[in-house]
Amino acid sequence: MHLAENIDKKKSKWTIGVDLGGTKISVGLINETGKIEQYLKIPTQAEQGQKETINRIKQSIYQIIELNNLKIGGIAGIGIGAPGPVDYQRGIVHCAPNLPGWTEVPLADIMRKEFPIPIKVENDANAAAWGEKIFGVARGIDELVCLTLGTGIGGGLILCGEIYHGKNFVAGEIGHMVVNKIGPRCNCGKNGCLEAYSSAAGIRDRISKRIASLKSQPDNQKFLNIYNLENIGLAQIFELARQGNMIVKDIVEEAIEYLGIAIISLVNILNPEMVILLGGIANEGEKLLNPIKEIVFQGAMSSHLPDLKIVLGKLGVFAGVIGAAALLWEHQKYYTLNKKGGPHGQSCFKECD
Amino acid sequence: MHLAENIDKKKSKWTIGVDLGGTKISVGLINETGKIEQYLKIPTQAEQGQKETINRIKQSIYQIIELNNLKIGGIAGIGIGAPGPVDYQRGIVHCAPNLPGWTEVPLADIMRKEFPIPIKVENDANAAAWGEKIFGVARGIDELVCLTLGTGIGGGLILCGEIYHGKNFVAGEIGHMVVNKIGPRCNCGKNGCLEAYSSAAGIRDRISKRIASLKSQPDNQKFLNIYNLENIGLAQIFELARQGNMIVKDIVEEAIEYLGIAIISLVNILNPEMVILLGGIANEGEKLLNPIKEIVFQGAMSSHLPDLKIVLGKLGVFAGVIGAAALLWEHQKYYTLNKKGGPHGQSCFKECD
Repeated sequence: MHLAENIDKKKSKWTIGVDLGGTKISVGLINETGKIEQYLKIPTQAEQGQKETINRIKQSIYQIIELNNLKIGGIAGIGIGAPGPVDYQRGIVHCAPNLPGWTEVPLADIMRKEFPIPIKVENDANAAAWGEKIFGVARGIDELVCLTLGTGIGGGLILCGEIYHGKNFVAGEIGHMVVNKIGPRCNCGKNGCLEAYSSAAGIRDRISKRIASLKSQPDNQKFLNIYNLENIGLAQIFELARQGNMIVKDIVEEAIEYLGIAIISLVNILNPEMVILLGGIANEGEKLLNPIKEIVFQGAMSSHLPDLKIVLGKLGVFAGVIGAAALLWEHQKYYTLNKKGGPHGQSCFKECD
Repeated sequence: MHLAENIDKKKSKWTIGVDLGGTKISVGLINETGKIEQYLKIPTQAEQGQKETINRIKQSIYQIIELNNLKIGGIAGIGIGAPGPVDYQRGIVHCAPNLPGWTEVPLADIMRKEFPIPIKVENDANAAAWGEKIFGVARGIDELVCLTLGTGIGGGLILCGEIYHGKNFVAGEIGHMVVNKIGPRCNCGKNGCLEAYSSAAGIRDRISKRIASLKSQPDNQKFLNIYNLENIGLAQIFELARQGNMIVKDIVEEAIEYLGIAIISLVNILNPEMVILLGGIANEGEKLLNPIKEIVFQGAMSSHLPDLKIVLGKLGVFAGVIGAAALLWEHQKYYTLNKKGGPHGQSCFKECD
């Protein structure tokens, strides 16, 4: 009886979150407050194929269970965030740009055969947004836009307290809003996407092109000391920009400005209560947040501003695993409370009243 | 018995739609297929105040009922589309830019005192979008963006089969997406909004400014014949542009191009199944639709295109009244069917499954 009680208690307490990336797999044991009890990070080894990657996920889960003296029955469920479009209802990864051979993979079913507990699979940016809602900065917020500012720019939309997927499960591609029709070429092949200006890759690419252009000019000796710009970290690039470095200054300023402009459009279209910045660039903290706030609160419609909050994510680099684990909370805790009318109040979709 | 049966039948058949505008009030008697049986249009006379405008609405409704030998009990309900943000749950018009004195008007309650039948109040662009869903081009479509291209540019979002309102009931301000940060001044006071390029007012304003600039130049005699451009209709402006008129050509081309670019961003953010163009500019028909389609299908992400349809609205100038009347169908027909699993299939919000 005592043991059974322990297991029941654990069942409602522990979830496992998996963040499947192109180069790394992160796995975390998460408690009911969203705290990470154990964290593993292993290479994805995507080149060895889908089956091998899935085996590595399974092994990591077993490892984390054993390390914590748990049994699989003592875990409430496993949530997985995967790159690319995911059919969250059927747990199928439609495709994953950085994972060769991943097409129409029924990941939830595959995992369920190994682990007979609830399994949820979601797009990774959506999972991160959900994590911020359940365990992070957006508790109690039902209308939010989450931007993941990394190598690329992704996004997750939470509308009416739910992850919004769109028709083909690919809503939230905020990085591919067109902010300047004659802007630089984006990785997607089009011109002037937000990602081409404001992602880490976009900023670096623009700096590289500027350096190449300077190198090709005669009398460029005075610029020799800036060639290293291509090899330094993003934080240093932002710091150099603030110091007035003439190679990077306007590129970084434009990155921030276009990010602000894209958020103005998002606010005017969706009228969210919160905009969350996540990812590597968000590590800039207040230095990024303050100019963004200034741009948005000056540029968005005043009718859209009374409740608007623009904030940094709270889960930081763990948004992926915590968000994946948070997917398990959708029916078990959040929705139950929501259906009863609290803590998030009345749903804004009438049929759910 | 026979009479009672008649009334019951009528009750499920007839609704009244009211489109409340800054200068005109349109009232229509609409049957269960969305067809207009009777249509009245009267001046709003907004300058006489809120009470008088509401009296005019009431009188028009009585008039339409009498003209059709109906009684108020034979009407299933009254739907009202109002400009500006509307709290649709409580039927309150928060404010209406073109209706002086309209602040926090409990329009549904006021109307309910006069007419003891169901009353729905919605933002007019949302109502138009809903009309297209229930009675127009978007039957069976649950993810759509509707653009109203008139003097200004408005929008209605239908997401997961529901009108999406946002936190402050002001979602869908598509006209104030920023498409060019150094673009022309918009009526909202900011620069480079879509509305400044692609609305009727925006196009006219840009033409006027160009003419003023030409007039100020010496040797401008060759342009004298174009001064009339300020007084001709929008259809003529578009026709002149197609003929290569050097004053209007690039202004109209940019209006179309920026509209296409804004739709690319909307598609990438929201992944809708349908984008609907409504309003005066949409009267251009295929001549507007085809270049827009070309821009969007080349510029949006391929993952977002498999189900995408870009179409003209079907309800035309009657989208306002038909859409307002369609609001009554949300619980009575559409949702009942939806909850049973048809005709629109499973809701995409899990809690509603």
